[in-house]
Amino acid sequence: MGRARSEFDVIAALFAPLSKNAPGAFDLKDDAAAFDVGAGHEAVITVDTVIESVHFLPDDPPDLVARKALRVNLSDLAAKGATPVGFLQALSVNSAVTDDYLAQYAKGLAADVAHFGIPLLGGDTTSGPGPLAVSITAIGSVRKGAMIRRGGARAGDVLCVTGTIGDAALGLDLLRGKLKVASRVNAVHLVARYRLPEPRLSAGAALAGRAGACLDISDGLVADIGHICAASGVAALIERDKIPLSNAARAAVTLEPEHWPRVFGGGDDYELAFTLPAPHAADLPRLAEEAGVPMTVIGRIVGADDAKLGSVTVLDGAGHPVEVPVGGYLHR
Amino acid sequence: MGRARSEFDVIAALFAPLSKNAPGAFDLKDDAAAFDVGAGHEAVITVDTVIESVHFLPDDPPDLVARKALRVNLSDLAAKGATPVGFLQALSVNSAVTDDYLAQYAKGLAADVAHFGIPLLGGDTTSGPGPLAVSITAIGSVRKGAMIRRGGARAGDVLCVTGTIGDAALGLDLLRGKLKVASRVNAVHLVARYRLPEPRLSAGAALAGRAGACLDISDGLVADIGHICAASGVAALIERDKIPLSNAARAAVTLEPEHWPRVFGGGDDYELAFTLPAPHAADLPRLAEEAGVPMTVIGRIVGADDAKLGSVTVLDGAGHPVEVPVGGYLHR
Repeated sequence: MGRARSEFDVIAALFAPLSKNAPGAFDLKDDAAAFDVGAGHEAVITVDTVIESVHFLPDDPPDLVARKALRVNLSDLAAKGATPVGFLQALSVNSAVTDDYLAQYAKGLAADVAHFGIPLLGGDTTSGPGPLAVSITAIGSVRKGAMIRRGGARAGDVLCVTGTIGDAALGLDLLRGKLKVASRVNAVHLVARYRLPEPRLSAGAALAGRAGACLDISDGLVADIGHICAASGVAALIERDKIPLSNAARAAVTLEPEHWPRVFGGGDDYELAFTLPAPHAADLPRLAEEAGVPMTVIGRIVGADDAKLGSVTVLDGAGHPVEVPVGGYLHR
Repeated sequence: MGRARSEFDVIAALFAPLSKNAPGAFDLKDDAAAFDVGAGHEAVITVDTVIESVHFLPDDPPDLVARKALRVNLSDLAAKGATPVGFLQALSVNSAVTDDYLAQYAKGLAADVAHFGIPLLGGDTTSGPGPLAVSITAIGSVRKGAMIRRGGARAGDVLCVTGTIGDAALGLDLLRGKLKVASRVNAVHLVARYRLPEPRLSAGAALAGRAGACLDISDGLVADIGHICAASGVAALIERDKIPLSNAARAAVTLEPEHWPRVFGGGDDYELAFTLPAPHAADLPRLAEEAGVPMTVIGRIVGADDAKLGSVTVLDGAGHPVEVPVGGYLHR
């Protein structure tokens, strides 16, 4: 609807070069692609959809829309300890999506295909009356049985995160005019963290076979650690003062402490939250160095004797519980 | 947008049972799924999106919408000679999609999960302002290097199809009030062929390692055989009178011969079109019996001496070219 066959061919031509390092993609000209994850390995697969005006803003730069759509899926692979193998793209356009928009979108995707060394294996382009939407299916590889699960946290584990927390939610607040920032450099940092998450692939690879449980933080720190607790049958205590903040986020919540809940509850950071059995906690600095990504202990996992199973409690500097907003983002 | 988190949990609950035969799907509660295609095999993967009012009609039964969305992807696996391993679903709903619709949709999907023995490995449900849309990513397994390509047709090959051709397009015409049929049984047959294609998995499995080229007919007989010719650098001659028609399609084009172009040009049959090297043409009855699916020689593949490369010519009973409509469906 709105696009003739030849226009689909133009779109296909934009994406075919992204498959050139994958012989099994057959230049995107066959009905399916073939791939192999290597002897002794199994495939890990995930799919996520982003929709204009729901998951990204109509005036977000098209190249960043493409890159974020890919990166949130790579982040899921990272959280499972998998190495990316390739991806497929189901792109739904409408008659208002211009050729220039698509060219910029494809250019952004090409940049990340090169950056992560992950080829486009296939796809489908459709046209309809709805908003622009992209579903990416990402495929990775892990040693057989080595995928890190959500359900592997045990009482006594230390609870850790990569990078810094809260930046993306504060960046979104800033774009929506809800946050003041004192400096342009801080503003740029927060918005970039919202628009272009960094999938923690090297961290995930370092954690495979070591972390008890892992996921990527997309719904919010407390909500996502709650998912680990629910899947593992444990509870978590987080020390607020140990949560790693960027300079920009620190400045924002110091200026306006009412934004603290965004650190606990905001999503879209795509950092990893993971647990390590206590004996391995001392390895954290070495793992962080191996991955080239900061890793910080923010709390610990406890059992039924210390907290309600499935619960996540944030403690202030004096050890008192802090009230945190319930749940994360409603969009999914 | 329209649905709160708890409603997504209800939707997830509808689909979780569809994963029960896949331990690596982790009850759809982790960030990704793990799967293995077996030693000596590689994975085959494909994605297709269907959108309401573009690829299916708003009043199509929801259970059939789900089953067709899955089946068109299984058809791609069949055409490549692959055995299905599992699938992922990216479902985009809107606030007008009722719980009852989703329950019927899930029931239909469950029926085909059971019928084909293929588990749901994962998915993503989103809500937005657009029409109902479903992207299915299907994964199959083939012996390494055995995926049947589009580009393997050679001059001298015989050209074959499974099943009967034209039913689905005539069924759609009937639903749109553009076709007369003499009997109710014929009407039911044609509409069922449009709404619920049968992926020719057993035929694809029988053809793996034997067919030179193969694809499934979704754009139309002539258009899709044109894709084989273009990819293979050959041309095709089709004998119109050899094209296998169902009794219902035969009755329709006998009553109204102006519907013949729908046999050549209509899509959505999801039968396989394939080529066999001439020495193996005699095997066709045995392959058809092995697959339990009728297979019919409808023509032959020729080279540059006999036709323009990439062209597809349909010949009548006297050997004269028949005019056929250009291209297939514009929706993709």
